[in-house]
Amino acid sequence: MIAEIITIGDELLIGQVIDTNSSFIAKQLNKIGVSIYQITSVQDEKSHILQALSDAEHRVDIVIITGGLGPTKDDITKKTIAEYFNDSLVRDDSVLQNIETIWKQHVRTTLLQVNKDQALIPSKSKPLMNRLGTAPGMWIEKAEKVFISLPGVPYEMKALIDYEVIPKLTDKYHCPFILHRTLMVYGLGESALAERIEAWEDALPEHIKLAYLPNLGQMRLRLSTKGFDEQKLKREVQEQIDKVLPYIKDEFAGFEDEEGSVEMVIAKQLTKIGKTLAIAESCTGGAVAERFTVHSGASAYFKGGVVTYSTQSKINVLQVPKSLIDQYSVVSAQVAEAMAKNALDLFQSDYAIATTGNAGPTKGDSDADVGTVFIAIATKTQVYSQEFNFGNLRLKVINKAVNKALEMLLKEIFKN
Amino acid sequence: MIAEIITIGDELLIGQVIDTNSSFIAKQLNKIGVSIYQITSVQDEKSHILQALSDAEHRVDIVIITGGLGPTKDDITKKTIAEYFNDSLVRDDSVLQNIETIWKQHVRTTLLQVNKDQALIPSKSKPLMNRLGTAPGMWIEKAEKVFISLPGVPYEMKALIDYEVIPKLTDKYHCPFILHRTLMVYGLGESALAERIEAWEDALPEHIKLAYLPNLGQMRLRLSTKGFDEQKLKREVQEQIDKVLPYIKDEFAGFEDEEGSVEMVIAKQLTKIGKTLAIAESCTGGAVAERFTVHSGASAYFKGGVVTYSTQSKINVLQVPKSLIDQYSVVSAQVAEAMAKNALDLFQSDYAIATTGNAGPTKGDSDADVGTVFIAIATKTQVYSQEFNFGNLRLKVINKAVNKALEMLLKEIFKN
Repeated sequence: MIAEIITIGDELLIGQVIDTNSSFIAKQLNKIGVSIYQITSVQDEKSHILQALSDAEHRVDIVIITGGLGPTKDDITKKTIAEYFNDSLVRDDSVLQNIETIWKQHVRTTLLQVNKDQALIPSKSKPLMNRLGTAPGMWIEKAEKVFISLPGVPYEMKALIDYEVIPKLTDKYHCPFILHRTLMVYGLGESALAERIEAWEDALPEHIKLAYLPNLGQMRLRLSTKGFDEQKLKREVQEQIDKVLPYIKDEFAGFEDEEGSVEMVIAKQLTKIGKTLAIAESCTGGAVAERFTVHSGASAYFKGGVVTYSTQSKINVLQVPKSLIDQYSVVSAQVAEAMAKNALDLFQSDYAIATTGNAGPTKGDSDADVGTVFIAIATKTQVYSQEFNFGNLRLKVINKAVNKALEMLLKEIFKN
Repeated sequence: MIAEIITIGDELLIGQVIDTNSSFIAKQLNKIGVSIYQITSVQDEKSHILQALSDAEHRVDIVIITGGLGPTKDDITKKTIAEYFNDSLVRDDSVLQNIETIWKQHVRTTLLQVNKDQALIPSKSKPLMNRLGTAPGMWIEKAEKVFISLPGVPYEMKALIDYEVIPKLTDKYHCPFILHRTLMVYGLGESALAERIEAWEDALPEHIKLAYLPNLGQMRLRLSTKGFDEQKLKREVQEQIDKVLPYIKDEFAGFEDEEGSVEMVIAKQLTKIGKTLAIAESCTGGAVAERFTVHSGASAYFKGGVVTYSTQSKINVLQVPKSLIDQYSVVSAQVAEAMAKNALDLFQSDYAIATTGNAGPTKGDSDADVGTVFIAIATKTQVYSQEFNFGNLRLKVINKAVNKALEMLLKEIFKN
């Protein structure tokens, strides 16, 4: 089965909001064997939405529409969908009841008419109950095709996909199994990696697709295939992985699909071995800590972190000696190592990472070139650091420093 | 002039990567009067790319294509574009020279054949020089239409848009002026806001469009218009803003277009009044600090922060008395206030924010319900806190807590 995602909203077309909904929907649908053929973002404009619906109907089996279901006048998706199906809007009592319940629990003021009107849905549609908001999802069948309209608010859309859309789609269709395995690779550029594994790549069977995904100092290598024999596909892909791993054994960091990300590989390993982590950040400004704390379960291994952005706070909070800073400057191996060591002591952790550098665009408290970053790792028995230059684009410097810090920590905790 | 963005890459269609390129391109093109009519994401598949190019050519004047220009075999955009224009690939010497320069500066190993081949471009195209990577951009004109192909790596694409594409487009076209003004509003839900400003909204002139953009406790209200008389448009929109502001004077937080975001409003004000900030985070895990430190200039006002994730680190690092934690629990107004106060002292700042709560999904070191968050603000003269419940979705709890912390700080620093 193939699907198209249509995201509706002027905010997407003027660049005010990044479309994060499509990637979530694509990922969830892939898991049940539905491939996304295309993603189309269109304006809050009737003729444009009608055209997009018609184009998508010719291309795919399943059309998933998000956005434009709010209570305000700029939201026109529902009316437009009704027009597309030559249908009219009728009140659905179960939806109205859900709206009243949500209003009572979360808003507590009088229910407004515009919110009551959110219970109006096309007569040919079935409502998909939205327990987290007042805009219902809608499911409309036309011949063998399905149209699904969902609110654009991400957490409402996500709950509807997981609890309403996925079960209904698996009921209706017999889908193939889609398999992706993604290898995380560190320390090799795209073309160097391609050259290293060329013989293997050229011998890959036709039905297993390979993709290279470079990302600021990290590479990902994705194998994809689909078919109806799940066990056979898994075996075939595993055979290819077994063949490629010897080429990249020093650079391989784990599987993104199973571990989620490098920080999750680290998190799982720390939890498993019962060790803890502290983080002292300067130029990365809290971004390393956040990579861990957005995931649940961080409290099992993450003791905490400091963002010692100013030189004074490195002295006051992390007890980095002022003399050390005066002698070597605040962007130096010595200061990075002192930060890591002292964070380890302060938080009483088993490992600590520290970053100090100049993310630019202007020089801060140090004469170091923009892009210079020192990253240090401390353990109970040693502390060491490395110097990098990540160029002169602020966000690139920050993100590369975060990736590199995670890479160094990964290597450290898997040393034994 | 209207444009379409075509983003190419299986990683987008399987949900592995979020398309952040389109919003950047849309924003930059809007500034020179080019409207984005549609964004289309398609697979790395020849027939699909050809179809998307042909569809876009019929819809718009300018087609911007990103992705699929890497040196590896899964990247097929360049060959496919050549086919679309019945063209062949020829070596461009200026591009080859640029590749050699980049290789010498950043890679330092022998230049591989696959990278040399990146200097091949369609004979009908002009290269757009990519100073940050080895994949050139390409500019192809066909009748009155322009096709622009750019690499998918965000920072390379961004530099090409700003330094190559924008100047060339403004040379070629006489575009209207597109005006967006976005008001940031706090503390009102979407429908309550709509009800409050209904009379004003109904009287808006036809050519000024209004949009509501809700986002986890923050609302944005966007006015958009376009035309050739820049001064007249600005005056008209300003008149409408002057009319609506009295309805929302207590909830208005600034203009997103000029200030960028709430944290930028705060950053500018702190810099202006010469005051400083410290942040003590528990459940938000570094996310509040990161909102400030991703922007340049943070060192002018941001002293630093701590992420005291574990109870022990609240005691060791922030000197929160153990007795206070035992008496009130780690998720409490008392602990939040002690964290804020002690962060203020530790970092010697003028303001401090603290968060402590339970982001879920399981309860941590406290019996507080999942979703419970206390946020405290400390100044040199006072400390206070508020209790919230942000529901039971981890990322929503974290993001709402960050937004609310920024809102409280905003109110505090604009008090006088």
